[in-house]
This record gives sequence, structure tokens and C-alpha cells, in this order.
Amino acid sequence: MKEIAHLLFEAKILKEIPRSGYQFLGVGKESVAEHCFSTTFIGYVISQLESGVDALRLISMCLIHDLPEARIGDLNTVHKQYVAADESRALDDTVQGLAFGRNLKELINEYNEGKSREAKLAHDADQLALILELKDLMDIGYKPPNSWIENVIDRVKTETGRKIARAVMDTRRDDWWLKLNT
Amino acid sequence: MKEIAHLLFEAKILKEIPRSGYQFLGVGKESVAEHCFSTTFIGYVISQLESGVDALRLISMCLIHDLPEARIGDLNTVHKQYVAADESRALDDTVQGLAFGRNLKELINEYNEGKSREAKLAHDADQLALILELKDLMDIGYKPPNSWIENVIDRVKTETGRKIARAVMDTRRDDWWLKLNT
Amino acid sequence: MKEIAHLLFEAKILKEIPRSGYQFLGVGKESVAEHCFSTTFIGYVISQLESGVDALRLISMCLIHDLPEARIGDLNTVHKQYVAADESRALDDTVQGLAFGRNLKELINEYNEGKSREAKLAHDADQLALILELKDLMDIGYKPPNSWIENVIDRVKTETGRKIARAVMDTRRDDWWLKLNT
Amino acid sequence: MKEIAHLLFEAKILKEIPRSGYQFLGVGKESVAEHCFSTTFIGYVISQLESGVDALRLISMCLIHDLPEARIGDLNTVHKQYVAADESRALDDTVQGLAFGRNLKELINEYNEGKSREAKLAHDADQLALILELKDLMDIGYKPPNSWIENVIDRVKTETGRKIARAVMDTRRDDWWLKLNT
Amino acid sequence: MKEIAHLLFEAKILKEIPRSGYQFLGVGKESVAEHCFSTTFIGYVISQLESGVDALRLISMCLIHDLPEARIGDLNTVHKQYVAADESRALDDTVQGLAFGRNLKELINEYNEGKSREAKLAHDADQLALILELKDLMDIGYKPPNSWIENVIDRVKTETGRKIARAVMDTRRDDWWLKLNT
Amino acid sequence: MKEIAHLLFEAKILKEIPRSGYQFLGVGKESVAEHCFSTTFIGYVISQLESGVDALRLISMCLIHDLPEARIGDLNTVHKQYVAADESRALDDTVQGLAFGRNLKELINEYNEGKSREAKLAHDADQLALILELKDLMDIGYKPPNSWIENVIDRVKTETGRKIARAVMDTRRDDWWLKLNT
Repeated sequence: MKEIAHLLFEAKILKEIPRSGYQFLGVGKESVAEHCFSTTFIGYVISQLESGVDALRLISMCLIHDLPEARIGDLNTVHKQYVAADESRALDDTVQGLAFGRNLKELINEYNEGKSREAKLAHDADQLALILELKDLMDIGYKPPNSWIENVIDRVKTETGRKIARAVMDTRRDDWWLKLNT
Repeated sequence: MKEIAHLLFEAKILKEIPRSGYQFLGVGKESVAEHCFSTTFIGYVISQLESGVDALRLISMCLIHDLPEARIGDLNTVHKQYVAADESRALDDTVQGLAFGRNLKELINEYNEGKSREAKLAHDADQLALILELKDLMDIGYKPPNSWIENVIDRVKTETGRKIARAVMDTRRDDWWLKLNT
Repeated sequence: MKEIAHLLFEAKILKEIPRSGYQFLGVGKESVAEHCFSTTFIGYVISQLESGVDALRLISMCLIHDLPEARIGDLNTVHKQYVAADESRALDDTVQGLAFGRNLKELINEYNEGKSREAKLAHDADQLALILELKDLMDIGYKPPNSWIENVIDRVKTETGRKIARAVMDTRRDDWWLKLNT
Repeated sequence: MKEIAHLLFEAKILKEIPRSGYQFLGVGKESVAEHCFSTTFIGYVISQLESGVDALRLISMCLIHDLPEARIGDLNTVHKQYVAADESRALDDTVQGLAFGRNLKELINEYNEGKSREAKLAHDADQLALILELKDLMDIGYKPPNSWIENVIDRVKTETGRKIARAVMDTRRDDWWLKLNT
Repeated sequence: MKEIAHLLFEAKILKEIPRSGYQFLGVGKESVAEHCFSTTFIGYVISQLESGVDALRLISMCLIHDLPEARIGDLNTVHKQYVAADESRALDDTVQGLAFGRNLKELINEYNEGKSREAKLAHDADQLALILELKDLMDIGYKPPNSWIENVIDRVKTETGRKIARAVMDTRRDDWWLKLNT
Repeated sequence: MKEIAHLLFEAKILKEIPRSGYQFLGVGKESVAEHCFSTTFIGYVISQLESGVDALRLISMCLIHDLPEARIGDLNTVHKQYVAADESRALDDTVQGLAFGRNLKELINEYNEGKSREAKLAHDADQLALILELKDLMDIGYKPPNSWIENVIDRVKTETGRKIARAVMDTRRDDWWLKLNT
């Protein structure tokens, strides 16, 4: 069970790592763990909308897609132009001695390849989590998200993903509870 | 799709809510969203260790078990002695107009009832997430977790849960990466 | 004196509790203790403007009006639609064994009933403290306060309260020190 | 009423000013407004224990004793060895055009002179607010308060103040709610 | 070497001191140490643009110009109207027993006198560091910098300084990395 | 001058990047800019102790040694086992179009090669900045620095550097101002 405890402490550090994109955006703040929660929650919602999708696979992929950041850090678009991360070796060290390590590796590989339906939807969930943040910041009055948002929306590829993106853009950040008063 | 956007903005607010237990503990800090990530990740790990468990049900329960806190706030043990929350009505408002609302309600109800194997394991995941935090804080040198930890460990009920709890208590917070150097 | 020390540590925790309304507003940040300071300061100012008011009663009410939040947490407008707090029992536990406990309970009861002139002014001080924050955030350029401010102003009931609200809305957040240079 | 609004925005900035002593202590964090809340609350408690004291005067003095820090900043013991602040002129600018400005000045002058019974008790409330913080930090496991606490206790001069100081030192930070379970 | 260690711990506390101007501005946040880094970096850049300047003198002056704030605190424009700081005595205590103390004092005196070419450029670096922050905040959408920026620009006196100020005002905060994509 | 403004905004982002080592340490917090200030200040102090050293070269190297982190992020010891950063290309993009770009590149190359006396001292300044932080955290009562500090001290190579390291370890974090009272 030693390896299980190691894995949990490793995943725990995602709470301490701030997403580095916000440093460049100039506003907003989110830990990698918070981003993973959002992505996984969106993955769950998508699994409810899509018939015939392997929900467990989709949700699990969302949950662990950023686990390698515990060893690699959170690299944003600028960083990635200069930095090459050996995610595969990082993952090998993560799962060393872990009975179900192979499952974990397979899931992340499937996500990174991005070919399966579930992987495509998980990638969209990842982008939708950012769109949600950017829309929220725009509603508050910040300018920088205006020049990012179109690029992020363009990265959403599935039909369901694009429908959700459009709905988010058409909805105010506080409509969900303001409607209580009507 | 309007309802989907509402639901995503509602879940998003879990990132803004700090877990109130830490105010009483005196150290540590975690958003509800970060706690949900930890719980779900532990749920995933448990699903890999337990044969015959419905992994999708277990993981989904972990993911959404604190969703009602968006409308109710994060109530700690002291608060709960004075406050009664109508979680059911909160949930009704959350899922209003949502095609898959019934699934969401069923999952949270199953979690709250705590009878199914998956619900029992999800409850343990919830407690293990806190044990992980307390052990981490103890390793750093803080005293208050010492008088909490036994109570929290006692709340872990399943055999797998208790094995993980013991492993966490026997492991230093930084062993996972310190072993790299050996 | 043990009970005195307990009471002081209890009131101290108001510094650790963030006002939950700002989580929904999307901007701003304030501990309950900071809000109590603002409310009490405004109560003092009102006591200077109102002849014939019991200043000690008014100021004391402002000071302790949120003391029950130590045991109950800070519930915002959304929370209150789902949560019922037994403030009376919380207060009983707070003052247990306290020689002047009855005075404390009477003050909070008077505040909650909101009938006496002093209670009405204390309630206005509570709202004015929020108006001051919202106006400040509006001057900085944030949008969300625009859709809240009218509702909060409407909750101010006394003539003196409404005069102050108007003056705050007509004043820029930094006029108090910018006028130094003229 | 313009002057009232100016005064409220001026007092509001005490929420933004961190108490500079904690920078030297190495742990802890408190805004001046939070300190003023603590001091005033302790002043209220003292007013309940002391017969024959002018409670309104005592509480009001506690409430506004740090108002000049809005224009002067929060100077700690080290700063004060090198910095001379013209608090009187700062106060003149604060109350300029204010109908009740004289009352405000008189209160702060009485506090600074420290001769009246109420002023002596207000000074003790100021120190007790710090003792409460230091004891809390000691219970958590921090070392630096150990070398400060004796000096601060020595600054408490009244009999009631010294009784409260002793009670705080004999009480654990979480006894107030831990006793709930017995 | 004891004195060296004292000096390093003293300079280290500049990381804990927030620049107090931002409390009045209402947005932004910077430690004194961060400001010193910016100022020194700008000093380095100026030393590359100005022929015949003593670069070591200029850069060193930028680096240590706020060292006295360790003992005095960070006083903003409002504070300075009421507070007189004996910077010279503070500096005497800082360099007491320090072999190279005289050099340190001379540098800060030269900076404060502001007569040498290097001192004038260091003063401009100090202002440019603030202009950079204000322009950044304006690009994000905050209003308060709009009413400060002209005053700060006016404080820049050298030709090189004014050229840089103009370039900063004509450049968007994120142009430096956005141009990567072209 | 456009390139100058770009460079300043690029260096400015070092204030937004937290040093990632503290995420693994579990305590402490520092921006890259704050670390650069400390390193440069220590470089200045070393330049005063070492005769015959090129002070300008030493100090400038300390100042800019982490500039590439603006494009690459702050990689800690664990990250570096998996990540390869093309610092040279990052630097090329930083200095593109910059008249004095060659000087900047040469300085960072000299630092990275670590052969010149100035480069060796700059590396020691970099480590001493961390030793200072760790010693400070140890004095406060945190445990994790105990298992890091020896490794960091071992990385200090020059005689002057080792003398300073020893002095820091023999000095309490608050001695510099506590001695005021003797």
C-alpha cells in the first residue's frame, strides 16, 4: 500500500500548483486541482448528453489528464514553445510498483493521442473549463479574456462541446442563482 | 443548453468556497473544488483496488457529493450542530429543467444514504482526502491536526479505506519524490 | 475567567471567516470581523448624527450582530433560502456560564427583532457597510456591483441611513485623500 | 454629508492595511480593521466586568484608536524608533468640516494620554487583542511568539486586564467549541 | 560575518512588506522586494542605453534605494504628509559594525540627494517601475490608474527615462509574447 | 524603444511566477522576482567582500540569471528530471531586435557555464538566497527545511559563500532588530 500513499501525496500537490496561464492573462487564479475538478465535472455532464460513450473512460481521463504536472509543472502555451517534457518517463516513475499502473498509463496515453471519441470529448472538457473561467472574468469586467476567448473556443472540436461552449458564452455568470428570485 | 451552462457556473463556484473546517483547525487551506478533486481521485484509486465495484457510480458520487454546497455553503462539524440545510430542495433547484437531473439526484441521495458499497467507499474517500491533508500538515510541524486525526481515521469504515488510511499515516508527505534520488 | 477567554477565542474566529457574498459577487473580499468593524464604525457615526439615540446600545449591537456566525458560518442570500440556523441555541452555547451573558443575548435579540430605533439604525449600518464596499468596487471598474447596489440601497430604511447611502454613492472612493492636494 | 462619506471611505482603508508587526514576527496576519474589531470586542467585554466605567467612552475609544493609521500607516515597534508621526495634524485633516469632529479628536487624545480609567482599559484591550493572536499562534506550533509574549503581557496594566491575560494564556485556542462534545 | 547575516535578514524582510500605494490605488499588489527588482532591472537597461554612465553605481543605487524601508516601513504620498522618518539614523543602525557600511551609506545619500547623473537615472527607474505596473493594470481594465498615471509620468526627468515611459505607454502588456505567433 | 518596453513587461512577469520549490517544501512563498532581488542583494554584498572581483559583472549576472523563467517557468529539482528547456532559444526571442541583446546573452551564458569567478559567486548568491529562506522557516518552527538545508549548503562552493552560509546558520532571523533593545 506504500505505493498508493505515494500516489495520493503526488496527486495532492496539484492543489499547490497554480495554473500558469493566468500569470500571462493578468487576472484569474486556479490551482491545477481546481481545473481538474472542473474538467471532470464537465466530463460527467458530457457523458450524460452523449449516448453510447464510455462514461467511466471519459470521466477517468478528465480526472487524471493533468497528473503528470505533479512532476513537470504547469506549462502554458508560451512555455511549450521552449520546453520539452518527457511525460512518459514522468508517468513511469509515478506508476512504478503500482498494481494498476498500466491502466493509469493507458488512460493518459489515450488522452494524449486524442483519437478515441472519449479522448476527444475529454479534450473539449479541458477547453470548456477554461472558457467557463474566461466568460466569468469577462462578466466581471476584465479585458484580457476578450483577446483569448476566440482561440480557446476554436479548440473545441466535438458537436456537444461546441453546443456547450455557445451556451456558456450566452449565459451570465450569475444567472444560475439570480433566477431564484423570479 | 441554457440549463447546462447554469449547472457549470454553479459547480464553478465550488472553487471560490474555502472549506470551513480549516478556519477551526487554524492551519491549511483548500477550496471545496480542490477537496472534490482529491475525493474523486481517491475514489478512482479505490475503484482500481476493489473488484466488483461499480467504478463509474463510485467515481461520479465522489465528484458531485459536495455540489449542494454551491447553494448551502460549506458547513463544518460545529456549524452542523446549529444549522439544518434542506439539501433536497437545493438539489431540486439545481436540476430544474435538466434532462439528466434525476440521475444527479439519485447519485447524491445514494451517497447521503450511505448504504450501497459504492456509497460507503465514497464516504471513505471523503475522509481519506482529509486524512491526507492532516498528515501533510503534521509532517510540516503543525500541532492542531494531532488532536483531530484519530477522530477522522475512526470515520473510515471499509477495509480498503482503513488500509489506505494506515498507509498514508505511515508515509511522509515527500517520500514520493524523495525516493527519486535513491 | 475561563468563560471570558472562551468568548474571546470565539469572537476571534470571525477574522478567519470570509463573507460569502463576495464569492457570488465575483470580486471583493472581507472577513466577518472586518465587516463588523465597518458596521460598528458606521454605527458610531450615526450615533453622532442622531440626537436622542442610545449610542452605547446602537454601537454594541453593531459590534456583536454577527457573533453567532462563529458557530453558524456566514450565510448569504442564496444560502438562506435553503438553510435554517438555530441562532438562539448557538447563542445559548456562546454565553453559557458567562456572567453578562444575558446582556449579550438581549442585544442580539433586539437587533434581530429590528423594532427599536437603535436596532433599525444598526441594520442600516450593516447595509451601509456593504454599500461602501460595492461603491468602492464600482469606482475600480468592476461590473457586478451594478446589479446589486440598488437592492442593497433599498434595504436602508431610516432617514439618516438613506442620507448616508446617497452621500456614499455621490463620492469617489479616493476623494478623502485626493482633496489633500487642493 | 460629503464629509461623512469621506470619513467612511477613510476608515474603510483600515481593511487594506496589514498590521506590520506580523512581518517581523514571521507568522500571522491581520488587517488593522480586524485588530480594531478585536480591540473593540474586548473593550465591550471589559465594560461588562468593570462597574462604574463609562462603557460608551471605553468602547468608542477602542473602535477609533487606530483611525489615524489610515493616513499614517501601521508603525510597529521598530518603525517607531525612526519615525515621528504628526497624528494630531492627520486627525485635523480627518475631521475637517465634520460636525462631530471635536468628539472624535477628544476621544483619541484621551486614548493617547492614557490617564482616564477608560483610556487605561482601552490600552489593555489593545494589548489583549495581540496576546490572543500570539497565544493562538503558539497553540498551532509556531515558535516566534514565545519570545514576544512576555513583553506584551507586561504592557497590560489594569487588574481586569491582567486577569483576562492570564485566562487567555491558560486556555487553548479551540476549547470554546471542543467543550461542545462533552 | 555576524553583521553580514544581520544585513541579509534585514534586506529579506523587504519581501514581507507590501507597497502601501496599492492600498490607496485599490488594485495591484507588490512587495518592496519586487519593486526593488523591477527598479534594478530598469536601471540595468538604462545603463545599456546611456553611454558614459557609471553602470555599477546606477544599478547598485537602484538595488538598495529602499533598504531603509526595512526599519521605516513603506510610506506612500499620503503618509509622507504626516510622517517624518529619520532615514539617516535607520541607516546608521543598519550598517553598524559593517566593514563596507560607509559605501552603502554613500550610495543611499547620493540617491537621496538626486544630483548625480546616476542618481537622476535611478530615480527615473523607480518611477518607471510604477508606470509599468499602472500601464499593466490599465490594460486589464482597472480605472484608478488613469487618474494617477499622468502625475507619475511627470516625475520622470531624464530624456532616456521619458523615452522609456512613452514606449511603455504605447505598448500592450502582452505584446512581448503575443508577437511570438506572428 | 518598442523592444525596451517588451523587455520590461517580460521581466515584470517574474513577479507573478511563484518559485515552485516551495510547493514541494510545503511552506514558504516567494516570487521569482523576489528571489532575484535577494540574489542580487547578496551579490552586491559579496562584491564588497571580495577584492578584485568585477562587481558590475557579478551583480548584473545575479539580476538577470532567472530572466529566461519568464518564457520557461520556474522549474524545480523534480521538474528538471523530466523537462528539457531550450533556454538559448528563449533568450534569442527575448533579445530579438534589442541593441544590447548580445550583452544580455553573454552574461547569462557566463552564468550558466559557471567558470568565471563572478559566475561562481553568482551561483553561490543564488544558493545563499535559498539558505536564508530555509533558516528563516526553521526559526519559525517548520520541519521540512531540516531535510533540505544540508544539500543546499553543500552547493555553495566559494570560500566567501561558505563563510556567509555559516554566518546565516548561526544567526536568528530576528537578531538584526532585537539587538536594537540592548
